[in-house]
Amino acid sequence: MPVPDPPVTGVPSDPNELPAPTLARPSRLDPAIAARLRRTVDGLVAAVVRAHDSGEVLMVAWMDDEALHRTLTTGRATYWSRSRREYWVKGETSGHHQYVRSVALDCDGDALLVSVDQVGAACHTGHRTCFYTELPVVTPEALP
Amino acid sequence: MPVPDPPVTGVPSDPNELPAPTLARPSRLDPAIAARLRRTVDGLVAAVVRAHDSGEVLMVAWMDDEALHRTLTTGRATYWSRSRREYWVKGETSGHHQYVRSVALDCDGDALLVSVDQVGAACHTGHRTCFYTELPVVTPEALP
Repeated sequence: MPVPDPPVTGVPSDPNELPAPTLARPSRLDPAIAARLRRTVDGLVAAVVRAHDSGEVLMVAWMDDEALHRTLTTGRATYWSRSRREYWVKGETSGHHQYVRSVALDCDGDALLVSVDQVGAACHTGHRTCFYTELPVVTPEALP
Repeated sequence: MPVPDPPVTGVPSDPNELPAPTLARPSRLDPAIAARLRRTVDGLVAAVVRAHDSGEVLMVAWMDDEALHRTLTTGRATYWSRSRREYWVKGETSGHHQYVRSVALDCDGDALLVSVDQVGAACHTGHRTCFYTELPVVTPEALP
């Protein structure tokens, strides 16, 4: 059954304060959810993607209001590509689909936790997770 | 032993393209790491914080180059507050410290996965995790 379009959300009140190209994307996101989002200057929230079965953190991508709307209403993880400036459905070209099990918003509205059934590798490099580069850290035990 | 300060990093090459107030923060971050970061327009990367023991995703915060430097070199999770525009060491006021076990950078340099030993609740609301608000999602099984 078609759902009537709710009002457009995600457009900041003072466009002069922000880079113009990102402002024009309309969204059908539930206004009650949109009102809780606290976006970056370019209108995005961080989406942390977690494997539903293992709990492993797989990747971080970015959603604007419409990407979140599509994710919630299709059950397929959909993001905004900052480099290509377009929506992308994970797995559309790679076949490495993400079937969404749950989505949680954090306390201050600037991040989402998306639990998915991940088909194949989450990372475009072929790694299971994008977080395969360890940085050197001084652990408290090693401090003088 | 004191470590000599490496060159300042994290300052974009064309400040005219970005909001001025965020650009002035110098950093001692290892230039080799700084070169791998792909920052938001306001100079930040997303830091996903995970409980070292359970793997639970606790929160997302933001780091600029210097916050990452402090996190890596002190073993105490340190972030940049977008609202207060200052550095904050997690637990400094709440006592809910985060002792860093490992930090991983993702494949495209715009997110970090920080594994911590979390003392008390990660969320300022008192919840163990900040992701306690579930959003309604249409799962693939429910689709026609």
